[in-house]
Amino acid sequence: MSSVETYLNDHYSDALDDLKAFCRIPSVSTDPAYAHGIVAAASFVAARLKKAGFLEVQLLETGGHPAVYGELVANPNLPTYLVYGHYDVQPPDPLEKWKTPPFEPDERDGRLYARGVSDDKGPLLIPILVAEAFLRVEGRLPINLKILIEGEEESGSLHFEATLAKYRDRLACDLVISADGAMWRPDLPSMTVASRGMLALELEIVGASKDLHSGRHGGSAPNPIQALMRLLASVHDKNGRVVIEGFGDGISVPDPAILIAIKSAQFDAAAYYQEIGVEGEPPIADGVELLTRQWMEPTFEINGISGGYQGKGTKTVIPSSASAKITCRLVAGQKPDQVAMAIERHLRKELPKGYSLQVHRHGPGSEAFFVDPQLPALAAAETVLSELLGRPPLRVAMGATIPIGAAFKKHLGCEAFFFSFSTSDEDYHAPNEFFRLSNFKIGMIAWSRLLTALGQSD
Amino acid sequence: MSSVETYLNDHYSDALDDLKAFCRIPSVSTDPAYAHGIVAAASFVAARLKKAGFLEVQLLETGGHPAVYGELVANPNLPTYLVYGHYDVQPPDPLEKWKTPPFEPDERDGRLYARGVSDDKGPLLIPILVAEAFLRVEGRLPINLKILIEGEEESGSLHFEATLAKYRDRLACDLVISADGAMWRPDLPSMTVASRGMLALELEIVGASKDLHSGRHGGSAPNPIQALMRLLASVHDKNGRVVIEGFGDGISVPDPAILIAIKSAQFDAAAYYQEIGVEGEPPIADGVELLTRQWMEPTFEINGISGGYQGKGTKTVIPSSASAKITCRLVAGQKPDQVAMAIERHLRKELPKGYSLQVHRHGPGSEAFFVDPQLPALAAAETVLSELLGRPPLRVAMGATIPIGAAFKKHLGCEAFFFSFSTSDEDYHAPNEFFRLSNFKIGMIAWSRLLTALGQSD
Repeated sequence: MSSVETYLNDHYSDALDDLKAFCRIPSVSTDPAYAHGIVAAASFVAARLKKAGFLEVQLLETGGHPAVYGELVANPNLPTYLVYGHYDVQPPDPLEKWKTPPFEPDERDGRLYARGVSDDKGPLLIPILVAEAFLRVEGRLPINLKILIEGEEESGSLHFEATLAKYRDRLACDLVISADGAMWRPDLPSMTVASRGMLALELEIVGASKDLHSGRHGGSAPNPIQALMRLLASVHDKNGRVVIEGFGDGISVPDPAILIAIKSAQFDAAAYYQEIGVEGEPPIADGVELLTRQWMEPTFEINGISGGYQGKGTKTVIPSSASAKITCRLVAGQKPDQVAMAIERHLRKELPKGYSLQVHRHGPGSEAFFVDPQLPALAAAETVLSELLGRPPLRVAMGATIPIGAAFKKHLGCEAFFFSFSTSDEDYHAPNEFFRLSNFKIGMIAWSRLLTALGQSD
Repeated sequence: MSSVETYLNDHYSDALDDLKAFCRIPSVSTDPAYAHGIVAAASFVAARLKKAGFLEVQLLETGGHPAVYGELVANPNLPTYLVYGHYDVQPPDPLEKWKTPPFEPDERDGRLYARGVSDDKGPLLIPILVAEAFLRVEGRLPINLKILIEGEEESGSLHFEATLAKYRDRLACDLVISADGAMWRPDLPSMTVASRGMLALELEIVGASKDLHSGRHGGSAPNPIQALMRLLASVHDKNGRVVIEGFGDGISVPDPAILIAIKSAQFDAAAYYQEIGVEGEPPIADGVELLTRQWMEPTFEINGISGGYQGKGTKTVIPSSASAKITCRLVAGQKPDQVAMAIERHLRKELPKGYSLQVHRHGPGSEAFFVDPQLPALAAAETVLSELLGRPPLRVAMGATIPIGAAFKKHLGCEAFFFSFSTSDEDYHAPNEFFRLSNFKIGMIAWSRLLTALGQSD
């Protein structure tokens, strides 16, 4: 055990106190009623960075909630890494489902229960504590370190890209390491190396210029709900795969190791459907196919639909319009603009006579994110985890979208990868969020070894 | 001109005063704020029946707004006809769109403007005035006459069937003549001899037991909106015709004269689509096909649809459920029960794995209504209209549903036909409802000749 690791072990009790203090601050970013919590959490992070020994510590003006910045850049010959995290948390509702109050951290069975403890207060505190240990024990870090902790991740990171652009010189680095993210499963070491991108659309179909009586006009007047059904039903084949021409152009596998992970994960499809409450025969019986669909294939998901009468009972109306909200998850190789064009072309081709169609796009969308499989830092992280956890981590993907990966690439021109010690089952967007304290400890050792390895490899 | 017709002509000014007085009563049946208007209108009808010479005049207890009854049954050897109408009216909203107040009848350009004047106060007053004329001039009617004027037609005739059942002995008759209904077009004499029936359903499809994140679960979790699209898109062919097996079983043409009317009506499809505000190429270009679809073919109309997120912007959700409201218009030969079963069978067959489907039926539905084409009274009415209007009326159908036809058949065991002098362009469910006073006059002559003919033909 290195002396840094010994220091971390010896000071674990202080570290836990720090985490509890951090979790007592109700830093909910979506609700203005918690504005005081945001201010207090940003101050807490800044103070903790200063205490650890970080320099240039300050709150960065973002236009929204401030981001907190600090750095330990001592040697221009060493590579510079930027650590990312967020101090804001999800709302605690529904409050009545919490066993202990969300902002009064409670230790039970080796877990710490509190809102935000797993996402992302515990994981982001780790690299700060590790940097402090290096400074106390060795007087210096093995690498140059910058740290950026934002306060709007749980409310959509609305000002994040603008912040990266505004402070690009200060944030310049060789690689980003995100302390946000999560291990896939508690029993399986993994690193998330890919996530899907996103494209959001809204469709509106109009038939007649006003609502019509379905008795008098039924059979002759266009029914936009019917046209919408027809259009949307033409998007997928029987197995739920998108059949729009051009939709999947350019799709590639970002890292063959993900395919290996899918095969070796022994994913239990039946248990998955039971967990989400799907009755009867599972739509996809094979675990390998299921994970492939979630991780490696794009989707065209209808998130909402509305049209006509939606109250109680019946109304004999042919509505004038009907609409649908769509989000597509994109995989490596797909470009949001091209996908949007392919979709609109397909829908216009399928549109029956007597209707007009409007396709509205919500935002520019984002390409899929993936870590360069050859990245030396990724191999270093895998070695560290392999030693600590007893088996090499799988390289896994996730179905959801991580916008920060693309943002760092775009504005700082560098890669990013995820090195987080929360686990996806820790209820981080639900009541009774918790963080495994064993992972808090392991995380500190892992970060200290990773920083050491990164200092040697370069 | 018979002496009855002379009497009617001589007393036209009094008749018009009666109609205006009737229209001053705000007898809106759907809105409890107009309860006083309902009471006043029922009293007005009862008083007018008594003044005309009707016997046994009384308000029938229905459980809702009262119906008004009266009779002139003098000779057991003559056939007995029951006249139907309704004294209640549609709400006057939007008030600001009326040129003159809805309950202050205004005579302009040969029309009387008032809420309810065309639907159905003018048309129902005619047979009362005609019966009075017979009594004054001849001391008796050519036939036995009963009259039933309900007060809930504009709010769904909720208690009408129960009322027919309760008073079936008193209402017993050989034939019902409805003073409610409307001529199809002002320039084309017509009699409505068929209307479509109805079946109302609601579908709900459930996938997972709770809403899911569309990133994490997209591609593997069932999306009930997508399944609903697939199901509903399978109902129609490209031309909008229902392709459900068994849906059209038993369909027949109730009266070949309707087909002749469709061909001779020279219906302008382009003008129709312009009127309802459909842009671009008309979905159905041929007027004959269009009318056939409206009058003679069944529909499966989606009146409303809902599922998932319907607010502003986007939400990355896979909803747990999605639902649709459906009404089918049925044509002669279709049975609501059988159609409902055929639909459910089809939907269950098309339902993909991973979903549950609930089909809820709203009420028993109703079969299509049609007048026996051989009915002597229908021929008599056609002769009368032919003489008065200069050309034989077309036998037309309507797409909407007339529940009373089936109700009379079921509870009184007799046929019904429509002999109304309102016209379908008289804005009876819209602001500035009017009644052509020329039709008020012609209607009185027509009813007097019809009663005479009915007295002779039997």
